[in-house]
Amino acid sequence: MTAPDPRLSINQATIKHADLATALRVTAEAGVQAIGLWREPVNEVGLDEAARMLADSGLRFTTHCRGGFFTLPVGPEREAALDDNRRAIEETATLAAAGAEGSTAVLVLVAGGLPPGSRDLIGARERVRDAVGALAPEAEAAGVTLAIEPLHPMYASDRAVVSTLGQALDIAADFDPEVVGAAVDTFHIWWDPQVLDQIARAGREGRIATYQVCDWKTPLAADVLLSRHYTGEGVIDFGSLTRAVVATGYDRDIEVEIFNADVWADAPDRVVRHTAETFASAVSPHLP
Amino acid sequence: MTAPDPRLSINQATIKHADLATALRVTAEAGVQAIGLWREPVNEVGLDEAARMLADSGLRFTTHCRGGFFTLPVGPEREAALDDNRRAIEETATLAAAGAEGSTAVLVLVAGGLPPGSRDLIGARERVRDAVGALAPEAEAAGVTLAIEPLHPMYASDRAVVSTLGQALDIAADFDPEVVGAAVDTFHIWWDPQVLDQIARAGREGRIATYQVCDWKTPLAADVLLSRHYTGEGVIDFGSLTRAVVATGYDRDIEVEIFNADVWADAPDRVVRHTAETFASAVSPHLP
Repeated sequence: MTAPDPRLSINQATIKHADLATALRVTAEAGVQAIGLWREPVNEVGLDEAARMLADSGLRFTTHCRGGFFTLPVGPEREAALDDNRRAIEETATLAAAGAEGSTAVLVLVAGGLPPGSRDLIGARERVRDAVGALAPEAEAAGVTLAIEPLHPMYASDRAVVSTLGQALDIAADFDPEVVGAAVDTFHIWWDPQVLDQIARAGREGRIATYQVCDWKTPLAADVLLSRHYTGEGVIDFGSLTRAVVATGYDRDIEVEIFNADVWADAPDRVVRHTAETFASAVSPHLP
Repeated sequence: MTAPDPRLSINQATIKHADLATALRVTAEAGVQAIGLWREPVNEVGLDEAARMLADSGLRFTTHCRGGFFTLPVGPEREAALDDNRRAIEETATLAAAGAEGSTAVLVLVAGGLPPGSRDLIGARERVRDAVGALAPEAEAAGVTLAIEPLHPMYASDRAVVSTLGQALDIAADFDPEVVGAAVDTFHIWWDPQVLDQIARAGREGRIATYQVCDWKTPLAADVLLSRHYTGEGVIDFGSLTRAVVATGYDRDIEVEIFNADVWADAPDRVVRHTAETFASAVSPHLP
């Protein structure tokens, strides 16, 4: 097998059931150079130990997943969520410093859905903007970029009231691009008639904090959260989307993030190898 | 029980397992004044007989469902699909003429998904525009309005490459508003950050061919096609959407269209009554 694309990063959710040590080991052993981590497995071993393990792995660190869940109304629960995001900002800075050269301090934010019993989508979106405003100074001080991730509109009620890249950029527009950007994830935005224009805009505005790829295929999984597939196994045109991202000058790592019960049931080393192979055939041809 | 809202129309899909005779009877017996029909049950009895039955029912006819499926590449299958749409245009005109005063000749169009093996979303969308152009003269001659229906982006690959109201209006813009408009269906567009602006635009441009309502709730059904609910049972804010439609001057009937296995398993007369009750509480308060 040839070496994996040097820009490929494995998002840890793709090998969800691997603990941090396993995730780092199988990623490095496959010849992949970068990894995006999730908070739970990092906190399972503790931040300092996680940072040491990451440094020992020699891998670049690409994103920390994830913060957000900003739609709660004012009150102690909202404050607790913001405090949790402050810890996530610290974790992101620490891990980015521990990763190999070329690591990026990017914290992915999922907006959150409608609070229970609420139908006020517009109000929920305003609270997302308010929360980003509350966290931006701390992110800036820590050298961390907050990446607002639009999620597919099928998650608008229960996961993320930010549904399009344009909407994420509208929120980010109030802030320094070094501090607040957007996550460009093919699964969430491939369907958007404005997607190519909005990727170009994100580039012009310096907002592409991370580019993430995986594929879309129907029928959707019964749990629609788990409908993400290896690149090339579905209908997403990685050519046009990747070329649009490349055209903005984005030259950093590209994460593969797959939530899929079959993938999770497979052995982590096999998953990483298959991720590298499918990335090489579906995405790499469109990179410079 | 009080009389149903005079603007309520029952879309026949809400009582999917009722044949045409039953659908007309339970709708009229509940005191509902209008109905939207589907092609299959109409063609089961034949168009002339269906028109007679509709006339006898005293109901207004609001829409015919449905045409479309326009994304096939050039070839005999595409021609067959266009011919089928020509028959649907005729059916629509005939049924609208048979319905009570105030009936509307509106044919709802679902764009169609990506052809098997294709990832060319942009090309598929162009073929939708081409097909509308091919059918528009015949719709105009028949006095029928083609209503392009944007479907929720979760159906973008397998059902409809037209995903937003703005996109439907962009396609419609090439044509006379009497001939090509859009279907405004709450389930499909409630999540869209541009929805209120695009409803206002649809009104300005004279393009609201039909307003359809039902609710969104999670978890989505395992078959995501069947995730539509009675108004008020989910998270859609019928206040803001209905007021936006009313503000455009739209004063015609409003259809309830529910695809839901539990609703379909219920007795049609009970479903129509419950539809009327939930419409009265969730939608009627926002009508003039």
